[in-house]
Amino acid sequence: MTDIVKQLAAALSADQVLTDDATRDSRRHDYWMRSWLADHQDNKNPSPLCVVQPHTTQEVSDVVKLCRKTGTALVPFGLGSGVCGGVQTSADQVLLDMGKMTNMVSLDETNLLVTFQAGRNGLEAENMVAEKGFTIGHWPQSIAVSSVGGWVATRASGQFSTANGNIEDIIYTIEAVLPDGTIINTGKGPRAAAGPDLRHILLGSEGTMGVITQVTFKILRKAEKVAHTAYHIADIPKGFDFQREILQSGWRPPVMRQYDALETKRNFPDQAKDDVGMLIMVHEGPTSRVDAELAAIQKIATEYSLEEADTEAVSRWLDQRNHVPTWTEFLDNGIILDTVEISANWDRIGDVYDAAIAAIKEMPNMLNASAHSSHGYANGLNLYFTFAGRPEESADMAKVYDAGWKAIMEATAAQGGSVAHHHGIGRVRKNYLEHDLGAGGIGLLRALKAALDPDNLMNPGVLLPDA
Amino acid sequence: MTDIVKQLAAALSADQVLTDDATRDSRRHDYWMRSWLADHQDNKNPSPLCVVQPHTTQEVSDVVKLCRKTGTALVPFGLGSGVCGGVQTSADQVLLDMGKMTNMVSLDETNLLVTFQAGRNGLEAENMVAEKGFTIGHWPQSIAVSSVGGWVATRASGQFSTANGNIEDIIYTIEAVLPDGTIINTGKGPRAAAGPDLRHILLGSEGTMGVITQVTFKILRKAEKVAHTAYHIADIPKGFDFQREILQSGWRPPVMRQYDALETKRNFPDQAKDDVGMLIMVHEGPTSRVDAELAAIQKIATEYSLEEADTEAVSRWLDQRNHVPTWTEFLDNGIILDTVEISANWDRIGDVYDAAIAAIKEMPNMLNASAHSSHGYANGLNLYFTFAGRPEESADMAKVYDAGWKAIMEATAAQGGSVAHHHGIGRVRKNYLEHDLGAGGIGLLRALKAALDPDNLMNPGVLLPDA
Repeated sequence: MTDIVKQLAAALSADQVLTDDATRDSRRHDYWMRSWLADHQDNKNPSPLCVVQPHTTQEVSDVVKLCRKTGTALVPFGLGSGVCGGVQTSADQVLLDMGKMTNMVSLDETNLLVTFQAGRNGLEAENMVAEKGFTIGHWPQSIAVSSVGGWVATRASGQFSTANGNIEDIIYTIEAVLPDGTIINTGKGPRAAAGPDLRHILLGSEGTMGVITQVTFKILRKAEKVAHTAYHIADIPKGFDFQREILQSGWRPPVMRQYDALETKRNFPDQAKDDVGMLIMVHEGPTSRVDAELAAIQKIATEYSLEEADTEAVSRWLDQRNHVPTWTEFLDNGIILDTVEISANWDRIGDVYDAAIAAIKEMPNMLNASAHSSHGYANGLNLYFTFAGRPEESADMAKVYDAGWKAIMEATAAQGGSVAHHHGIGRVRKNYLEHDLGAGGIGLLRALKAALDPDNLMNPGVLLPDA
Repeated sequence: MTDIVKQLAAALSADQVLTDDATRDSRRHDYWMRSWLADHQDNKNPSPLCVVQPHTTQEVSDVVKLCRKTGTALVPFGLGSGVCGGVQTSADQVLLDMGKMTNMVSLDETNLLVTFQAGRNGLEAENMVAEKGFTIGHWPQSIAVSSVGGWVATRASGQFSTANGNIEDIIYTIEAVLPDGTIINTGKGPRAAAGPDLRHILLGSEGTMGVITQVTFKILRKAEKVAHTAYHIADIPKGFDFQREILQSGWRPPVMRQYDALETKRNFPDQAKDDVGMLIMVHEGPTSRVDAELAAIQKIATEYSLEEADTEAVSRWLDQRNHVPTWTEFLDNGIILDTVEISANWDRIGDVYDAAIAAIKEMPNMLNASAHSSHGYANGLNLYFTFAGRPEESADMAKVYDAGWKAIMEATAAQGGSVAHHHGIGRVRKNYLEHDLGAGGIGLLRALKAALDPDNLMNPGVLLPDA
């Protein structure tokens, strides 16, 4: 055993520091397609030195301090559902597994707040809150396989975001251990003008600025009424305009998803029509407000001459929405694929769609280029692209993958969009981050990182662009 | 002329660097009562070395760089309406007056965005947007005397915040000059998962982390319907419960203000009844949603057995809401007074009210202790206290003032509230900031400050607690 492993075992207990091959191997990386491809091609990244499983925030602090003292790099790990390469270990690193920190600390029905330790599974958390008649209202596709701390660390979005907000709107307080071992608890009171909002240094920090140990979410009372609507969308820009009109008129259907023709056919084979796209919506809230929203949206749809579609499509989506595909089957068939989410203002989003789809289609060996929108704002929209390729030589799969990503990143940036909507940066996007932040923003981020983690021990290689 | 004044005049132009007594004297401090008291007692703080008035962001960067190079402290100044002592110069400091940077850079009706240089007067900005059929929707009481950059620097709230959000919800992008002169432009796309949200380092930074030079706000279409409601509130906690029920049911009247009996009598002499309090609300939005909200609220009011009040009270408030009192008359009468805003969760806010009012009433020489709420959340409420005192000796006025602040700060913290809702920290609150941030949070804030402004030249003495 190396010195740090011994020290960790002494500081916590021996059974909290795992060095067996199976455990270390199972936490070498997250759900990033590129890591799965590497495994598939027997090009595995190394297992970490050990897997340490703290039970308390104080133990996390102890681990962080020991790593700092010994100059050991540390990789925080929630449930490993990230898709951007936020976790990818090397042999000299300690993997900090939050999987034993799962307590529900409190459920406050008066103030509508719930507190969990960071390692709690998201769907379990939602179910515990639902049992009492509430909802967290944050439904990432990965909800069944992601941790509540991971939601915060990656700045996630849920499927009901249009009304409920993204994770930064749902989070109330964050407890975290900074790279020097300090425990902080940021966020107090329902709102404060108390200097910079320190929660935002941890939100989206992906393990580079500290370890999130506990989170408090705002919760909602369960909606009085839920309703579904669906429309055929023959013309993509017209569908975007329809969404814009709904949102800028002040309505907030929690779910608004517009699929292009290809994705409509794939997702809603029984409801799709004439090779055109579809927009599905879920409406939630007090009955009278939902009714007002339905009437208003119907009126706008008439103005746009849109044809209603079978709302069975919405039910179908609700049933299947939390499915996370397995990469293995694709890889076995020589197919490399991924999803890439971006956002842009209303007057740019159509051009982003066209440019990115055209760029993928232009590339050799590509099988699929399609997209849907899933998160709407008064000021713009996201798009969620899917691309898939099958090169003649399997050795070229990584090259095709990287080229697909590059095409969408560069097309988005060239059209003025933001290159990262809700999966985070990780490794796959770090060298495109400057498109969003500019050179000045990257400099500020580096200054922040250097101030908090001068030895670059917290999840090195993630988020910040290569030097 | 000192060296820095000469260098500034050479870098910009001579007429942008003012050294006359009147100009320097007029920007010695903001609207903080304590500074006004000092003036009144002939204990004036010194004028700055000079007042520099850049026209462009590049000129701001040039000024910041020159100050850094020469080790000169720099105090940014918007329109001087801050009430917490965020501006208070000394004789060796440069005052950076943003008053010449007032352009409307763009108004984007498609994406509902408007961009102003930071020095633009808030009411002028709102009126320019209103002319086109939109609203920024941010209505601080100070709107007629504050700058749009100041709103961001102090993390302000507007009177219509319950629906429209606070400034952090309304801001889209922030352009700023960091303490090393770097120009950054943070925020891209309607939403991003692109690491820590760097806007939040500037929001509420009060000039300590950089100079805000340009801001882009989300704007709203003008509401289709506006309605007013008012209720007599005999029992303060019952009124809080009523507000909680409205908000937790999912309704968002942009204005919700509950006054205690004393403030009701003072503000609504013609509508007040039987020495009890009042709650006034403004409802805005699509007609059908406003109608649904009105019906729902009426139903809740019936459940709470609340009696409707004359909505003339709401009209009266709307007419008078942007009045900013002059301190001079009070000071001439030997009266020292201030307003103090805090927030707390629903289950603590009643105790905060009781404890703070009791603490003020207990103090000798106090004339008034009263409060209203003005910003509601699903998770809690703010309170806006007013205290006034008249000591026998005018020399004791500062002591009475400090004691009044301390009483409210400590009562709020003891009851678990947040000590700063929307006026910011400045000098008056900096030594209470640890109540909100904890020792760990203060350490993080200091680390951030040291990383960005190692020589402590940006608005020194503000925000961060005394060492």
